[in-house]
Amino acid sequence: MQEIIKAVKDAQTIAIFPHIMADGDAIGSSLALKEFLDRQGKTTYIIYEEECSYKYQFLFREKKQRYIYPDVPAKRFDLAISIDSGDMSMLGKRAELYKSAPITVNMDHHKTNKMYGDLNYVSLSSAAAGEIIYDFLVSYDPGYVPDTFTASCLYTAITTDTGGFRYANTTKRTHEIAGILTDCGIDVEYICKQVFDLMPKPQMELLKRVLPKASLVHNGKIGIIRITRKDYEEVGAKEEHSDGFVDYVRNVEGVEVAISFKETRDGKVKVSFRSSGVVDVSETARRFNGGGHENAAGCTVEGDLRHVEEEVVQYLLGSMAP
Amino acid sequence: MQEIIKAVKDAQTIAIFPHIMADGDAIGSSLALKEFLDRQGKTTYIIYEEECSYKYQFLFREKKQRYIYPDVPAKRFDLAISIDSGDMSMLGKRAELYKSAPITVNMDHHKTNKMYGDLNYVSLSSAAAGEIIYDFLVSYDPGYVPDTFTASCLYTAITTDTGGFRYANTTKRTHEIAGILTDCGIDVEYICKQVFDLMPKPQMELLKRVLPKASLVHNGKIGIIRITRKDYEEVGAKEEHSDGFVDYVRNVEGVEVAISFKETRDGKVKVSFRSSGVVDVSETARRFNGGGHENAAGCTVEGDLRHVEEEVVQYLLGSMAP
Repeated sequence: MQEIIKAVKDAQTIAIFPHIMADGDAIGSSLALKEFLDRQGKTTYIIYEEECSYKYQFLFREKKQRYIYPDVPAKRFDLAISIDSGDMSMLGKRAELYKSAPITVNMDHHKTNKMYGDLNYVSLSSAAAGEIIYDFLVSYDPGYVPDTFTASCLYTAITTDTGGFRYANTTKRTHEIAGILTDCGIDVEYICKQVFDLMPKPQMELLKRVLPKASLVHNGKIGIIRITRKDYEEVGAKEEHSDGFVDYVRNVEGVEVAISFKETRDGKVKVSFRSSGVVDVSETARRFNGGGHENAAGCTVEGDLRHVEEEVVQYLLGSMAP
Repeated sequence: MQEIIKAVKDAQTIAIFPHIMADGDAIGSSLALKEFLDRQGKTTYIIYEEECSYKYQFLFREKKQRYIYPDVPAKRFDLAISIDSGDMSMLGKRAELYKSAPITVNMDHHKTNKMYGDLNYVSLSSAAAGEIIYDFLVSYDPGYVPDTFTASCLYTAITTDTGGFRYANTTKRTHEIAGILTDCGIDVEYICKQVFDLMPKPQMELLKRVLPKASLVHNGKIGIIRITRKDYEEVGAKEEHSDGFVDYVRNVEGVEVAISFKETRDGKVKVSFRSSGVVDVSETARRFNGGGHENAAGCTVEGDLRHVEEEVVQYLLGSMAP
């Protein structure tokens, strides 16, 4: 950490790289770090891979400036910092730009981190990159108290990656930091509504279409939800609008494995698995050339939805008790 | 607080009264207090008004003993403690039993508290009664560290009343206590799943039936969800299974007022309002002999669902911008 602080102090122009498909943790952490560095007199750019999800647009209400690769304001930086990115592939098309900096820093909390930076700060006990950034800011300036904007960004980061302090990664330290941020004038209710609750109208219309078709099979142990191209198209919804729909069947009492089958634009089927802990779903995902963890995994399979569903469920049944 | 500690120390037999229709805060706080007092050598009873909601049954897995009025083990106690109850009406049919104790204690956090006990500890800055009970236990025994069961109960209490640390009542102190409890070996993910996510099958079937019929009116500013007796009956759902359904329409972008209309067993319509903050819904609720707060209110109206809906929405429109 001290080496990173020294490198930051020595740098004038700094580029921050959140991971591809940046989530609340990556975006909130990047914005908080930029705000702090700007106030230190640095010239700081956050370079995104793509436009950020609608969920996190509220963070840009005050600070509108943002850069989406390759539309970047400069090609040379004294320092490049990657945020919440386990390996270089998480930087997507920006990997070369990141590597071109004289010094690269890697700040992350994933246990799979490849330590690819010149300087690496990887804290596995941190529930979110937001916790790491908070610790960094306080190490940099021991008297640091976040302003409301920065506190909102860090709170968004931490609450995103802990599912609102509900996942097992939540620690005493997570709550300590959240408590400090809560005292910085942030609007907890507003932030949480944006991150967790707000549904764009097309998403609601999509849910109204697909939920009635959700079903339980295998004695109620497998819950399935299916989203076709027609479902998306008839309500004007985007693929991101069906993010999290698998939770509706996952939460049903008795369900051990929840699966969503979604038709993609290119005629394949994107399959997401969630397990209650009884079944290791990563095994089935790997069988279909996907990956993931025991309790959350996924794969993309060629074929029509019904056929893919049959194949996947049949394979999964082999790893489940009758 | 010191007077209450003295009264508890002097008592041998203690009855704890959570409020009617006890929620996670009332149940968790009561169980935590009982566990502590039992370990102090007291004889402690929790007396409930009715069977507890399915959501909180997991708290009774280890500690099965519970009493539902009037099926109580004793009629005389040295001390009676009400939990999370703003006034005597919250004790329902148990009010006389509570009042019959030589000393009554009232521990609560509602600003409407009527200070009806001989000793009253009402902390308006506490987000949950669970916070008050935690503070009480630590005041009683400054070296106190909760065991896992007690920590689970207090965590359930606090997370229930803060909506998972999402409501504006969440303070730095809330997170401090939650952090300490998180360090006591509790299973945060399991608890949160029980309190917030788990859906009994009839609840899911009910949602599948009623969500497609939900609608937005008045330029998308009013979201409406309706549940008929037939909906409940055809899927075998109870009224409690539709608790929270109003949130599905409340969360839709642009909705200022969300309303649920539910047919009751006795042929009336129970109306719940949620406001995003733009409209004061308590005014409409009061017009129909109900009550509540600016952002959450309700009433029960005679008549058939469609007719009640028309009347209520028409009145509400009078208090909304076009």
